[in-house]
Amino acid sequence: MQAAGAVIAIGGAESKLRRRSVLQAFVEECGGQGARIAVIPSASSLGPEVVEVYRAVFTSLGAAEVIELRPRSRAEATAELAAPLADVSGVFMTGGNQLKLSAFIAGTQFGDAIVAAHARGAVVGGTSAGASILAEHMIAFGSGGSTPKQRMSQLAVGLGLVPGAVIDQHFEQRNRYGRLLSLVAQSPSLLGIGIDEDTSAVIRDGVLRVVGKGSVTIVDGRHLVSNAYEAKRTAPLLVSGAVLHVLPAGCAFDLAGRTLAVISTPEKDEEVADLRAAEADLREMAREIAAEGVSPTDYARRLRRSRRA
Amino acid sequence: MQAAGAVIAIGGAESKLRRRSVLQAFVEECGGQGARIAVIPSASSLGPEVVEVYRAVFTSLGAAEVIELRPRSRAEATAELAAPLADVSGVFMTGGNQLKLSAFIAGTQFGDAIVAAHARGAVVGGTSAGASILAEHMIAFGSGGSTPKQRMSQLAVGLGLVPGAVIDQHFEQRNRYGRLLSLVAQSPSLLGIGIDEDTSAVIRDGVLRVVGKGSVTIVDGRHLVSNAYEAKRTAPLLVSGAVLHVLPAGCAFDLAGRTLAVISTPEKDEEVADLRAAEADLREMAREIAAEGVSPTDYARRLRRSRRA
Repeated sequence: MQAAGAVIAIGGAESKLRRRSVLQAFVEECGGQGARIAVIPSASSLGPEVVEVYRAVFTSLGAAEVIELRPRSRAEATAELAAPLADVSGVFMTGGNQLKLSAFIAGTQFGDAIVAAHARGAVVGGTSAGASILAEHMIAFGSGGSTPKQRMSQLAVGLGLVPGAVIDQHFEQRNRYGRLLSLVAQSPSLLGIGIDEDTSAVIRDGVLRVVGKGSVTIVDGRHLVSNAYEAKRTAPLLVSGAVLHVLPAGCAFDLAGRTLAVISTPEKDEEVADLRAAEADLREMAREIAAEGVSPTDYARRLRRSRRA
Repeated sequence: MQAAGAVIAIGGAESKLRRRSVLQAFVEECGGQGARIAVIPSASSLGPEVVEVYRAVFTSLGAAEVIELRPRSRAEATAELAAPLADVSGVFMTGGNQLKLSAFIAGTQFGDAIVAAHARGAVVGGTSAGASILAEHMIAFGSGGSTPKQRMSQLAVGLGLVPGAVIDQHFEQRNRYGRLLSLVAQSPSLLGIGIDEDTSAVIRDGVLRVVGKGSVTIVDGRHLVSNAYEAKRTAPLLVSGAVLHVLPAGCAFDLAGRTLAVISTPEKDEEVADLRAAEADLREMAREIAAEGVSPTDYARRLRRSRRA
């Protein structure tokens, strides 16, 4: 039996020109030079234009082929349209309106074909709306704000590729703590995942790895206490005891254990450069001492002089 | 020995006209009809105008007297200026620039007099900047955003009336999760307290009670893992395992135990009204049955008829 592919949820507004770390990681997961990627722009109101952008980026990042599949209604989401999914190495859903994705794709033959592609090892990813549809439960829409309130967000049904989770996007840029917390308050069994722009959660074998510029925020509500079952109208919600993880690039998170798996090791370029330089100095010193019989004190003096010059 | 007074931290923009629950709670804590309140507008660039607003509100809420004390420099923050603090029942610091409060008041004779007033039982409160200065550590300034980043916020020294804590304000409205989390990531021993606008944290005997329209967000970092000690420049910070409490009005929190003390009991007006009406009906029915010998079935029929009419 083949292992399932990675699920890659991107928080929207990923860089397409300069430091394209998020889309580069996507193409690499899809197989790099051998990547065959289906772009699904159904969430977007622009179809072909969006596909052309991603075709250009994925191709310049080395992908072998990029095809477009665009069901524009539930009726169009057929097994025939989905046929090419049988031999792509990656599926990418663009941003737009995620209710179009739950309406046109989830639970159709086309949607089933995406799930089947994932099961046989293809990578399935998406950005913004295309990220939210990936999880079992999909945030449909909601209002911004830090504080969770009753009725501030809606839940719909996603593709189920990340079980027991809900994925929100543009997390930092659109101030979405409140709406994610409100969903977890109502369903504490859900793992809330909020992804910043130009950032992705790469999920494989139950481990979530963070790539990109921002962070992935995880809300674990298993032990939380809430009044969501009785809060009226748009009242602020009680959320007590949620465990919070904010994970920048380089961190990894064990989704089953709900614990940090790898701690980020940020670039220590300067420190490393200093150390390398010191090592090089020491080696040169040792060489000179051995070759010329110069004393360490003499050598250090000569080194200082040559540096001043 | 007298018990210390309450500390009341308001998240800014508290209602001054209609539903003034936050300022009303402040005046009540200060003794209601007997309240003598000193307003300190040192953080504000408008002095007398701000005092006049609070004088009008506090007086209309029943306070007996409102005085103004306004040190405008560290040199002015003398014991002489502070003399009236010896017999007020409440101290209120307005909003503005909290670095003016740490610069002009904290650690001066005037600041010591505020601390002494609190110790003998006076209430000490403040809004916005006036809230931040109350805790042991004061958030001086910082940028907005949900995701914690290195160097996004500054810490200065507060009055110390809430030990081991840092208080942020305008929490939901200015998207301040990131800056509060960044401070707790750097100092996990700190209890982070974020207060929404028109909302207050009323702290007395180690218990924080929430009053007002929004919520108080508490970040408990005791068990968190962070990379704050090595994150470079403005990199996003790792914060893993922080425990989060978002508390709407009516909730109470045990600051020492860091646990929810009282769960919010939102208004169940309709439910209660229905129950009361049913009880009244039953009582009337019992009375009529006893007095007139009418059968329960007859009575119920008459009741329905009289309601239709």
